[in-house]
Amino acid sequence: MSVVQVNTPGGNYPIHVASGRLTQLAQSIPADATTIALISNPTVFALYGETVLNALQSTEKKVVQVLIPDGEQYKNSQTLDQIFDALLQNRLDRKAVIVALGGGVVGDISGFAAACFMRGIRFVQVPTTLLSQVDSSVGGKTAINHPLGKNMIGAFYQPIAVEIDIDVLGTLGQREIAAGLAEVIKYGMITDADFLHWCVENAAALTALQPDVVQYAVQRSCELKAYVVSQDERESGLRAILNFGHTFGHAIEAGLGYGEWLHGEAVGCGMIMAAALSAEVCGLAPEHVQLVKDLVAAIGCPTQPPQWEADKWIDLMGLDKKAEGGQLRFVLLPELGKSVVQAVDVTTVKKVLAQF
Amino acid sequence: MSVVQVNTPGGNYPIHVASGRLTQLAQSIPADATTIALISNPTVFALYGETVLNALQSTEKKVVQVLIPDGEQYKNSQTLDQIFDALLQNRLDRKAVIVALGGGVVGDISGFAAACFMRGIRFVQVPTTLLSQVDSSVGGKTAINHPLGKNMIGAFYQPIAVEIDIDVLGTLGQREIAAGLAEVIKYGMITDADFLHWCVENAAALTALQPDVVQYAVQRSCELKAYVVSQDERESGLRAILNFGHTFGHAIEAGLGYGEWLHGEAVGCGMIMAAALSAEVCGLAPEHVQLVKDLVAAIGCPTQPPQWEADKWIDLMGLDKKAEGGQLRFVLLPELGKSVVQAVDVTTVKKVLAQF
Repeated sequence: MSVVQVNTPGGNYPIHVASGRLTQLAQSIPADATTIALISNPTVFALYGETVLNALQSTEKKVVQVLIPDGEQYKNSQTLDQIFDALLQNRLDRKAVIVALGGGVVGDISGFAAACFMRGIRFVQVPTTLLSQVDSSVGGKTAINHPLGKNMIGAFYQPIAVEIDIDVLGTLGQREIAAGLAEVIKYGMITDADFLHWCVENAAALTALQPDVVQYAVQRSCELKAYVVSQDERESGLRAILNFGHTFGHAIEAGLGYGEWLHGEAVGCGMIMAAALSAEVCGLAPEHVQLVKDLVAAIGCPTQPPQWEADKWIDLMGLDKKAEGGQLRFVLLPELGKSVVQAVDVTTVKKVLAQF
Repeated sequence: MSVVQVNTPGGNYPIHVASGRLTQLAQSIPADATTIALISNPTVFALYGETVLNALQSTEKKVVQVLIPDGEQYKNSQTLDQIFDALLQNRLDRKAVIVALGGGVVGDISGFAAACFMRGIRFVQVPTTLLSQVDSSVGGKTAINHPLGKNMIGAFYQPIAVEIDIDVLGTLGQREIAAGLAEVIKYGMITDADFLHWCVENAAALTALQPDVVQYAVQRSCELKAYVVSQDERESGLRAILNFGHTFGHAIEAGLGYGEWLHGEAVGCGMIMAAALSAEVCGLAPEHVQLVKDLVAAIGCPTQPPQWEADKWIDLMGLDKKAEGGQLRFVLLPELGKSVVQAVDVTTVKKVLAQF
């Protein structure tokens, strides 16, 4: 088992990465917990519900099951209210613990429910997709969507533990694996050139989910994300680099309609565009732009963005919630493994868009 | 002007207490704020909206007005959504600042909106009732109600400043003043016997809103609450003493239907009951129980609780969200100006209930 320790002002907690971790969940439930609320969706619960319930039985605590609808379109205030209704109808108190079993939607909304219920109860993240294992379950960002924007309503709220079972990845489709790997290689690009080159060498083993390779990739991704988050829990500075590829990626998601491309696929393609912009603005070498593109292709993500007019791209990127006071800011790579946040003028952005 | 500094892990901020403070609000708006969202209700806005808008004009920032319905029954998720809709329709970003102009309802829901909007933006509390000036605006408790319980959904989230203008108290009715004074004398009872005796001596001047007396009472209340909150932001220990009188008080509010008695009135009467329980359990002198009762009467709060069967009281108190694992815990006074939190068995509670 790998253990990654996360330290933030909002809380310190371990991430456990191992095969068979679902059967050990009871280890993360504090002795003084009064009740466990297991939040999941019907799809994930059908696969792992029984294993998890069995694992939690050894705590001898009451387990309340809360199943929420499956899909990003349900990460909203109605589903959040459904969770609160269930917690209150079952008379959960401040010493209850939420266990979030599922992908990013379940984790984000369950974490936000934990942040708000009685002004904050403890929760454990049990991410069941590769994307959520390496991204959303680490760092304490919780949220729901609003009709006018994704993740607009939320909190920075840290779990008490993250339990990652790599065995669950076997049930994911190839697109979901590619989408998760996009975030994995992102950590290499923005913070760790050695890890990036390791990903290049192991791309085939990663897409084939070779266990030891996957375990290391997940562990290293969590370490790198934990490092960034520990420096900047509330995204006032360094944490912004985690958005590498996301400005273009969000534009793709918004322009095509959310769900058409997976988030990770859009980020994968967005990283190629951001690498090209880096070459233009801060001197990333052309062969490194090519390396980014080849690696995105090797993990199975799309490399060709939608063919839109430049103005449509600019509009879509202007809507990004990180656009403070109207500036277009990007995370860029001066070299592989290093990243900066920089404002770029619209003319330069359009010049790069024309390359695609 | 009095300045009370609040220091908590979640943030440090000043409370300004003065006559005419509404006209100086611009001083609390940070220079880098992009937009100001002024949240209020139609009643308060009709009285002070123009003064506040004039005061904010000197910042030269865009001000978005958000008026929410007046009343505790609107401190719910629908009104919260209305606020989020307005913030997003007006394209507020992470550097926007919320100004909450109103009583506890406006402050609680606006603070919670600030806590959640884009995972947290800055906000300024401008409490316009005595109760909110001495209680809810200090300490960072924000929340909305749920059909199954008050303040069930919320956050600990600190404002960047609290601006208290004592001139606004002149428009309050006598019942609202009494309800606010109940919390003022509470601080004396639980933490500061000198202040309690000062309240006894100045009870008439307090109910008459004599400005210098009111300013000192508000300042001292904020100091005492700030001291408690700075020791225990998230209510894991000491902060519980602020609930003196609240277990009985909440039972009165819930049993009569919320709004029948004002919260402060219920707490006022609840403190008499908690004092009587203190005499029974931890030796508060009978003459001090009498002092509590006389002072509650002097500030104009009811001293006679509803005449219910003991079991109804117990049921109503068991529903309190602070009831962890089924125990009935009370804040008690071993002597005036000192408080403890203690579990009390039902038999003893019933014995004291029989005295009323």
